[in-house]
Amino acid sequence: MELTFLGTSSAVPSKYRNHPSIALKAFGEIILFDCGEGTQRQMASVKISPMKINQIFISHLHGDHILGLPGLIQSMGFRGREEPLHIFGPKGIESLKNSIFNLGYCVIEFPVIFHEVDGGIIVDEKEYVIECIKTEHNIENLSYSIYEKKKPKFLKEKAIELGVKVGPDFGKLHNGCEVKIGDKIIKPEQVLGEKRIGAKIVYSGDTKPCENMIKLAKDANILIHESTYKLEDESKALESSHSTSQQGAMIAKKAKVGKLILTHISTRYTNVDELKKEAMEIFENTEIAYDFMTLEI
Amino acid sequence: MELTFLGTSSAVPSKYRNHPSIALKAFGEIILFDCGEGTQRQMASVKISPMKINQIFISHLHGDHILGLPGLIQSMGFRGREEPLHIFGPKGIESLKNSIFNLGYCVIEFPVIFHEVDGGIIVDEKEYVIECIKTEHNIENLSYSIYEKKKPKFLKEKAIELGVKVGPDFGKLHNGCEVKIGDKIIKPEQVLGEKRIGAKIVYSGDTKPCENMIKLAKDANILIHESTYKLEDESKALESSHSTSQQGAMIAKKAKVGKLILTHISTRYTNVDELKKEAMEIFENTEIAYDFMTLEI
Repeated sequence: MELTFLGTSSAVPSKYRNHPSIALKAFGEIILFDCGEGTQRQMASVKISPMKINQIFISHLHGDHILGLPGLIQSMGFRGREEPLHIFGPKGIESLKNSIFNLGYCVIEFPVIFHEVDGGIIVDEKEYVIECIKTEHNIENLSYSIYEKKKPKFLKEKAIELGVKVGPDFGKLHNGCEVKIGDKIIKPEQVLGEKRIGAKIVYSGDTKPCENMIKLAKDANILIHESTYKLEDESKALESSHSTSQQGAMIAKKAKVGKLILTHISTRYTNVDELKKEAMEIFENTEIAYDFMTLEI
Repeated sequence: MELTFLGTSSAVPSKYRNHPSIALKAFGEIILFDCGEGTQRQMASVKISPMKINQIFISHLHGDHILGLPGLIQSMGFRGREEPLHIFGPKGIESLKNSIFNLGYCVIEFPVIFHEVDGGIIVDEKEYVIECIKTEHNIENLSYSIYEKKKPKFLKEKAIELGVKVGPDFGKLHNGCEVKIGDKIIKPEQVLGEKRIGAKIVYSGDTKPCENMIKLAKDANILIHESTYKLEDESKALESSHSTSQQGAMIAKKAKVGKLILTHISTRYTNVDELKKEAMEIFENTEIAYDFMTLEI
């Protein structure tokens, strides 16, 4: 899996930071989280093809998180896309469709399917699961988690005890198929351990610190958390339902994540060392995202 | 007057070229021509404040020329703008308003006034005039001309002949006020020459070569003409109602303009020397625009 930060600013973009968007290259596709204005150009800069995106997950309906959608969708149409595009987001996202399709003259002939979601497992594929939970911004915000499904441990000794011979039958059972040993049918659940999850990545969207965020981020390998403000501007964060870098770090600590990446940085801070330093006082393994930052997981 | 090219690509943006937009700093304001996606960030990069824009002139309703409007307008609202914003464009532009105002959650409390125009003088201010004319794209396209009003020549000898003494009365008459000499009233029109225009700038939007373009561009100091294609792709230009660089140059030559600037360059051309060379065979004083290119006029 490869994460690319396409935009890391908050409401106002700067020369160095575009509006929010994160691309996850995994499972043979590109999965997009948020799509601020200019996202399609950011993608062009790092050679990510819009045609490989089948799913976009929107945290909330503020312009800085959605205004790249019309251009991205129109460009897909312009390139002759035929495959459906799925867009997930909070209540209200379905009504974006008309506005997007009526922004000037455009031909969009492929299916664009909007899904209004409000929590729980929203995508359950063979290789991965995507969940969301409501967190606390000044309008409805969803935070997302994506994790790989990992095969349960194969209990080798148990299998031998049941008469399975070392060889192809081990693989069949591990892959979820029954095998026949003499007259006996051995079922996979007899030789498999508990369900396991692989790499887990969690993205906050915009939120002030809250219990649901800790719950969703629990044991994640990577927590991408918004960090609009510095500690000295904590009152501004509270007022606008955003977080400081220390508040993001507190979530990371409580959720026991592996690594914290702070994003959605207010462009009032040209030097972000202070934000990082303040976060690291609480959670050591912290990075500040920058546009085009890439991370292998 | 200062021209800044904020975006110089055609339909698809690249790492080096954003979607079309041109800012003209003149007469104490910023006048914008077209507003492709990402224009507000391009403005941030060169420190042009969106709050100084009172008028935007849209050539046509293809996404690459308009998708920066929602973000720009929402950002103006976010910054507490109160002054009205006027947006001019071809038939259909008024219906953009609903789509823009319904793109997610936003508060826009200042007046945004859309003007559907189809030719002739559309703005006539004390210091300048803006005209438009229909040109020939695959949807309705307007090309725009802006020119400074320049005071007519002051006929000094005529004034002296009429008994006006050298001094403040000369200035009064040149500025359009009557003066009294003894019992006689001297009117400005008695001592002023013919109406004159100052610097004239013309912008094509998207069009194939046509007579109306030559008419509008007549004697302009600067013609900014689209140049989507190279000579070898002339059939593509024809098919999509665009121009090659040579066709732009032919317009410049026939309209006897001072300087030609080619823009709206297809991102298929990474090296634009060929486009320039081909245009210069027909019209010598040609430049290829690039993002953030600035020109004093």
